[in-house]
Amino acid sequence: MKKQKVSSAVIRRLPRYYRHLNDLHLAGVERISSSALGKSMGLTASQIRQDLSCFGEFGQQGYGYNVESLRGEVSDILGMNRGHTAVILGAGNLGRALLENFHFQRSGVTLAAAFDVSPDIVGRTLSGVPVYHVDQLEPYLKESPASIGVLTVPRGVANAIAARLVAGGVKGIWNFTNIELRLDSTGVIIEDVHFADSLLSLSYMISEEP
Amino acid sequence: MKKQKVSSAVIRRLPRYYRHLNDLHLAGVERISSSALGKSMGLTASQIRQDLSCFGEFGQQGYGYNVESLRGEVSDILGMNRGHTAVILGAGNLGRALLENFHFQRSGVTLAAAFDVSPDIVGRTLSGVPVYHVDQLEPYLKESPASIGVLTVPRGVANAIAARLVAGGVKGIWNFTNIELRLDSTGVIIEDVHFADSLLSLSYMISEEP
Repeated sequence: MKKQKVSSAVIRRLPRYYRHLNDLHLAGVERISSSALGKSMGLTASQIRQDLSCFGEFGQQGYGYNVESLRGEVSDILGMNRGHTAVILGAGNLGRALLENFHFQRSGVTLAAAFDVSPDIVGRTLSGVPVYHVDQLEPYLKESPASIGVLTVPRGVANAIAARLVAGGVKGIWNFTNIELRLDSTGVIIEDVHFADSLLSLSYMISEEP
Repeated sequence: MKKQKVSSAVIRRLPRYYRHLNDLHLAGVERISSSALGKSMGLTASQIRQDLSCFGEFGQQGYGYNVESLRGEVSDILGMNRGHTAVILGAGNLGRALLENFHFQRSGVTLAAAFDVSPDIVGRTLSGVPVYHVDQLEPYLKESPASIGVLTVPRGVANAIAARLVAGGVKGIWNFTNIELRLDSTGVIIEDVHFADSLLSLSYMISEEP
């Protein structure tokens, strides 16, 4: 598939494409025009065509896109078939919310283990996921490499744990700690989930309303 | 203050401005040039000047920005001084993670109450926030209007509860349910937190790495 440099705005929209195409597929829709797909996503038809052209030629003039095959293409582009595995660091409320309610597998990621320090949960299995003491992180990763570390630890230990994940070989950190991690140019990708930024955007938008 | 139509990309960056300016202020920094601010945020100096010019004239040629006053301006723009209040619907793992660990007040929002159906927590007070039965939502909002509803209920009841929040007068919904809410053109703002989109972006980025 031909590829070109993809802007971060397009990357941000790809998961939404996947989500919409998946919903359409589950609803039994077999094909869709760029204008109909655009309408459901709040984008123009030409925006849709332009976004998808970054990754190759999809769709046919006058026919539209085959929903299932485009969904498959987007899923491939997103790396959902790469067999990524993740470990969760911190099984407090947020870690457990992800463990128990978030469907990692639907994003193509296998959640293999969780790590915490609390004697109440170390040694237990939550939603099928074993919880180990954080002291076991290094030997665990040596035995069972993971590509993603999910960081739901308290802020005060976030950088220290992130450094251990990087030393353990993860390629990406999904950071829920609301601090900007300081990793020395390791090539590891950090994806921040900033709850406060999201709430402030909402605050702005409702404050603008008359 | 003069205002012009602000693009959603700028709105998305404003909370990051606030976060960086707040960190600088707490670190005792009194003024900063647009190039230094840009460097710490991964933006160019001209991008910084352009973003902030949407909201009026800040900073002085050759002097830079006064950190505390710019922080105050950005905070005003974000509506942090509007006295927004929020209620949480759903005090499961995720609701409790927000209740117990997220500092609403730092975003200028007062978290006033939580609602759930579980007899284990209805009637209790968690981190200073009273938990009521969801049946009490309508009389509660009539007595104590809230501008933001935080939606951390199971997906199956998300639309029904969102409709009740809208009928109860909220102006914005902070949606953690990972479904796209269907509200009939009510003017209520929905801010989605899509964990899956974030994880898929990370998956894309680590899959691109050699």
